[in-house]
Amino acid sequence: MLTVLCGGVGAARLVAGLSQVVDESTITCVVNVGDDLVVHGLHVSPDIDTVTYTLAGLHNEATGWGVVGESWRVMDELGEIGGPAWFRLGDRDLATHLYRTGRLRAGASLADVTSELARARGVRAAVLPVTNDVLATMLTTESGERLTFQEYFVARRHDVAVSKVEFLGAADSGPAPGVLEAIDAAAQVIVAPSNPLLSIDPILAVPGIAAAVASRRDHVVGISPIVAGAAVKGPADRLLRELGHEASALGVARLYQGLVGTFVIDERDASLGGRIEQLGMRCVVTDTMMTDRGRAAALAKVVRDA
Amino acid sequence: MLTVLCGGVGAARLVAGLSQVVDESTITCVVNVGDDLVVHGLHVSPDIDTVTYTLAGLHNEATGWGVVGESWRVMDELGEIGGPAWFRLGDRDLATHLYRTGRLRAGASLADVTSELARARGVRAAVLPVTNDVLATMLTTESGERLTFQEYFVARRHDVAVSKVEFLGAADSGPAPGVLEAIDAAAQVIVAPSNPLLSIDPILAVPGIAAAVASRRDHVVGISPIVAGAAVKGPADRLLRELGHEASALGVARLYQGLVGTFVIDERDASLGGRIEQLGMRCVVTDTMMTDRGRAAALAKVVRDA
Repeated sequence: MLTVLCGGVGAARLVAGLSQVVDESTITCVVNVGDDLVVHGLHVSPDIDTVTYTLAGLHNEATGWGVVGESWRVMDELGEIGGPAWFRLGDRDLATHLYRTGRLRAGASLADVTSELARARGVRAAVLPVTNDVLATMLTTESGERLTFQEYFVARRHDVAVSKVEFLGAADSGPAPGVLEAIDAAAQVIVAPSNPLLSIDPILAVPGIAAAVASRRDHVVGISPIVAGAAVKGPADRLLRELGHEASALGVARLYQGLVGTFVIDERDASLGGRIEQLGMRCVVTDTMMTDRGRAAALAKVVRDA
Repeated sequence: MLTVLCGGVGAARLVAGLSQVVDESTITCVVNVGDDLVVHGLHVSPDIDTVTYTLAGLHNEATGWGVVGESWRVMDELGEIGGPAWFRLGDRDLATHLYRTGRLRAGASLADVTSELARARGVRAAVLPVTNDVLATMLTTESGERLTFQEYFVARRHDVAVSKVEFLGAADSGPAPGVLEAIDAAAQVIVAPSNPLLSIDPILAVPGIAAAVASRRDHVVGISPIVAGAAVKGPADRLLRELGHEASALGVARLYQGLVGTFVIDERDASLGGRIEQLGMRCVVTDTMMTDRGRAAALAKVVRDA
């Protein structure tokens, strides 16, 4: 059994790679919910959907989010009547959010709904939200503005300097059923190549998770989302610098010290290997760029065997 | 100025007729909200939407509800993932519900949102919900089941005997801003040919409305939704009988006694005119079947001149 701590696209690619090299039903994804938002009254879980759509083969590689074969009838109409169309939700994608919102209002937990949606999409891996509780990633900008994750990421296109990241509600949250068990029982716990500050930290902020991961340290494998000093996708490099960390595989390794027993870095960062091992973790050097299914499977194999 | 108490399709046709014979901007529609529902977390206001879409020339005459040129991408996908698809919401229509729900969650009143949506659709008449408060039409069946309006109307296709109709929340509700003023100031208050028990009664159940209408009695014109003993559309005839009323223009006139000064009935019911006048109202006989825009305008002219 493999348990993967997941953000969005990078995590989804790795999990899709793993599903090619192990039986998919032996994978458990524990997914960040700090990016979740309510828009037009609908509960949207971007990371859960990215992981689910990717495992279902529905991820839209062209846009980097949403569903293949998507159409935009609802959003186009919403734009015509002057509605807020900054957060684009495609027609197929909207069905997911209608389903989730209806079920949540009927009293189902986010974990229940996530599992139902994964099953409906033909996903055999277990997809778990890290928590059923509300946990909201909030960013404070240098000018003192306080933004939700999506305001920062989508509305501002992460083009604003950040001075603080908080996870509202985290202290009062608890792990969703099965999350701690999946960490405890896994042959390997994998920290996906996701943004450490915005995707992995909110998972670790749920009481009990960080300790559970640390207790499995020798079986925990992290993958650097930073290659040659730059984020493969998104604002992780910039954010690391803004919050006083080094924007490198070494900087990420420092954040995971005490949690991760093995850290996988890209060949271009091979020179950092020695300093990473000084942090008390094994360092594995390989090609970490999952630009297609084959390369994702190759990385997954290295991770599995690490 | 004309003020029209409105249910759904019958009212919308009459108002569209009126908009051909008076300046549309002099019309105020006071619309039933007892059929409103929350589905998939979205606030749907069927009667408000029918009136708005019809005045905007967007009403789907083929289906009798929803929007012309409609598509079903979201509902088709929702069906595929096993979601509840009994209440069909088209893609264009969904944009209305996303807009409404988002604005309501942001603190806008239903009246604000209704006005914004009417303006966005190019409607010049004022469209007002009768109340900003929650008022839910509930039906008790002969077997003791308690159904919301939409469970009765859509899920059961109104094919179940009803023993009681209630308007939950009505006693604690108040008229939306402008509603009483529109009734007081109107040259004519028109009770549209809508279901008296399910569309007009919930309007009159909002404290203050019935008294305001009664005080304008000499200027109140009602139109019978029952022609030759049958509802033009929907279950009004059956429901009248089940609840102990006569399913005829006379039966409806009795319900409106004390409120309506003039009652308009169809030519086929001309023989009931004498007994209706005995109730203390003038009776006008004309063709009330609004099967096309021309006939709707002709009826509207008779009503305007009544």
